[in-house]
Amino acid sequence: MDRIKPRTLSGFMELLPAPQMQFERMLESLRTTYSLYGFTPLDTPVIESAEILLAKGGGETEKQIYRFTKGDSDLALRFDLTVPLAKYVALNYGHLTFPFRRYQIGKVYRGERAQRGRFREFYQCDIDVIGDGKLDISNEAEIPSIIYNAFRSMGLERFKIRVNNRKILTGFYDMQGLGDQSADIMRTVDKLDKIGPDKVRDLLIESGVSREAAGEILKFIAITGSNQEVLTALEGYRGRNETFDQGVDELATVVKYLAAFGVPEENFAVDLTIARGLDYYTGTVYETVMLDHPEIGSICSGGRYDNLAGYYIDKPLPGVGISIGLTRLFYVLGEQGYFNEDMVTAPTDVLVLPMTDDLAPAISFATLLRTSGVRAQVYGEQKKFKAKMSYADKLKIPYVVFLGEDEISQGVVKVKDMTTGDQQALSPEEAVALIRASKEKLAQQKPIQEKQA
Amino acid sequence: MDRIKPRTLSGFMELLPAPQMQFERMLESLRTTYSLYGFTPLDTPVIESAEILLAKGGGETEKQIYRFTKGDSDLALRFDLTVPLAKYVALNYGHLTFPFRRYQIGKVYRGERAQRGRFREFYQCDIDVIGDGKLDISNEAEIPSIIYNAFRSMGLERFKIRVNNRKILTGFYDMQGLGDQSADIMRTVDKLDKIGPDKVRDLLIESGVSREAAGEILKFIAITGSNQEVLTALEGYRGRNETFDQGVDELATVVKYLAAFGVPEENFAVDLTIARGLDYYTGTVYETVMLDHPEIGSICSGGRYDNLAGYYIDKPLPGVGISIGLTRLFYVLGEQGYFNEDMVTAPTDVLVLPMTDDLAPAISFATLLRTSGVRAQVYGEQKKFKAKMSYADKLKIPYVVFLGEDEISQGVVKVKDMTTGDQQALSPEEAVALIRASKEKLAQQKPIQEKQA
Repeated sequence: MDRIKPRTLSGFMELLPAPQMQFERMLESLRTTYSLYGFTPLDTPVIESAEILLAKGGGETEKQIYRFTKGDSDLALRFDLTVPLAKYVALNYGHLTFPFRRYQIGKVYRGERAQRGRFREFYQCDIDVIGDGKLDISNEAEIPSIIYNAFRSMGLERFKIRVNNRKILTGFYDMQGLGDQSADIMRTVDKLDKIGPDKVRDLLIESGVSREAAGEILKFIAITGSNQEVLTALEGYRGRNETFDQGVDELATVVKYLAAFGVPEENFAVDLTIARGLDYYTGTVYETVMLDHPEIGSICSGGRYDNLAGYYIDKPLPGVGISIGLTRLFYVLGEQGYFNEDMVTAPTDVLVLPMTDDLAPAISFATLLRTSGVRAQVYGEQKKFKAKMSYADKLKIPYVVFLGEDEISQGVVKVKDMTTGDQQALSPEEAVALIRASKEKLAQQKPIQEKQA
Repeated sequence: MDRIKPRTLSGFMELLPAPQMQFERMLESLRTTYSLYGFTPLDTPVIESAEILLAKGGGETEKQIYRFTKGDSDLALRFDLTVPLAKYVALNYGHLTFPFRRYQIGKVYRGERAQRGRFREFYQCDIDVIGDGKLDISNEAEIPSIIYNAFRSMGLERFKIRVNNRKILTGFYDMQGLGDQSADIMRTVDKLDKIGPDKVRDLLIESGVSREAAGEILKFIAITGSNQEVLTALEGYRGRNETFDQGVDELATVVKYLAAFGVPEENFAVDLTIARGLDYYTGTVYETVMLDHPEIGSICSGGRYDNLAGYYIDKPLPGVGISIGLTRLFYVLGEQGYFNEDMVTAPTDVLVLPMTDDLAPAISFATLLRTSGVRAQVYGEQKKFKAKMSYADKLKIPYVVFLGEDEISQGVVKVKDMTTGDQQALSPEEAVALIRASKEKLAQQKPIQEKQA
């Protein structure tokens, strides 16, 4: 037979079973966290009409999109989950209850140039709260709490959620008479971390900002300190611009509710240099950086916007949302050695080894285990004992249960703890209780384990 | 602004939040059941090289596939999860531990003519056990148990798993000297339910089968009764063909282990008319029909095959697997009114209504709820009381908690049970316990509820 060499396309992540299990645990953490905050799961098609997906059009999106025809239809694969959400809300406006809180975890597609750590198919894990006409600031205050718990539930601890408010920036540039240039200025200021304040000043002046205004900008973005210190410094600018004042009020509200939402100060920082590139955002904006790997960039970003679905419906639909690019995050965590090597990634909690020709007793015991919520596999292959044990070893299965003539006649099972090597004869009920307790303990393991600094 | 009319492509299922929640519960049931049997989750790309996906080539597949180019690449969307599994196992052969047990739940794509109940994007929920060279019959015996528990966990009870063994059929036709025609004959016999035995006899004779052989075939496929009765009848044919005898042994083994696997006889039937169209299958084959809706056809099918990945690798990789087409099943269950209308599909277990300007106490209580695993939403919008209650009503949220000045000063929360209308002041801990207990009870609800006959 002519054979075709098996391969997976470059830029597409396909994991071996053990890392896949870690990835699943991360997905599960996100589903659980998002659900705890009352977000409803949503699932939209991967394929949409190209006209719908490209309603906004232009730029990188159009170049990267997977677009093709089938019959007469001009189709494309979704490149994010926001455009499908906008379509969904516009299409089902009359059937939804607002504020509409949804999470969506799904694959999106971008035909980027393939390079290390860049993916053409990747998971986005999004939440959004959409208001009908209005949306209270408390929704913006809640987001850092969700980000905090999402990462903590995976085992990540050393991260900081950076928050700013676009109204503060817009208002500030208005005060300086630079309202028209604010988008350009924000892009320049965004480079602060990379090029430093002097180069930012040069670039600003080069782009036509007066020396005096450039000085004011640098003074402004140099405001740092505790959240309270930054807020106090911002008070000094109050009263000169309405948008600015509103932004400060909003930021103060977000900070105020942090403690009630259970977010410790060390995981949160007001940062006046954060702008998020998109013009789309109009209020609070979020970025999240890993303290030990700032070079990775933001691992969870988002913000408040005023107009989700203007391309599809004549209704003001403000919202706030964030997105985690889980495929890339998983990749960089692996690169940096962040995975918990002790996490049990075995496909089963226990391997039941029948030592008799009749498999019925082993199958009955496995059935009992499953009824108690324990994952159990009966190893029915006709192999040497050593090969059977090697199967359990390779898959790192925590327990092996032997069922031979002796055990069957005595009504017991022999349980081997594969970690300690201990072996004991137990009643079936005792064995189930033991393995179940161990399973519940192992379920507490988190996929990410940071190295102690 | 020029607006584009929002729409979702025809043949693509996109659900409103409440049905989506039911769909999620069904997905969760399958993930849990598959995991309990020691299957490891797998995730492969939606896009593969067209050359890989079409290795087998030919027929309907090629016509229906979504195929397109991006740059120089000839790409296609997967049309099932079996071909990607074959590629995966061939590609990672050296890294996998056999028997390799994997489940995969994912969307697949077929550009079929759009019609009611036909989908172009749909979920397949597959399990397969792959052996390296050999695979024990006990794996085939396990499958009905998995099907049984998968459907039971969703709430479906009135279904029957029909099982046959291809070796019995092949062996029987060999005995009749009809080995060469067996594929054609099986296709004709497959029509028995639709056209009846007389027409089947006519068609067989028309296709060149002798009158006598046609009579034997009809006598054979008329064998019915309890599993034991069918097996006894098959014993009468023993000793004339090796393949046949092996098939009877295998079928007897599958039936023998049913009780140990916890499958009641009423959900299982040996059925000699089942062949499954594909030549691919070589041993046990499975179909599952809804007793009250046989017209829907099989809702879970599969079987034993000998050569998973022959197109990609020079290794014999036998396996056994089944697939549930969840999107179609969900659609027909809805059409037939099978959904549990009492199932709570609310996005949250409790809506916390702050009755003060300061939301901090409400947020703190919601944080406490979430720490206890209860889904909680703080309703922070500035609306009239009636509008807030209407939000809870519309979403069918089971509990509403009020937190006003009085409650805050007394250290209590007021809990309203939205089903009964009862309202009581409780300590925060009591309230958490109450709502949590109710949530755990509601979690026992199953998405499917059959009408009592």
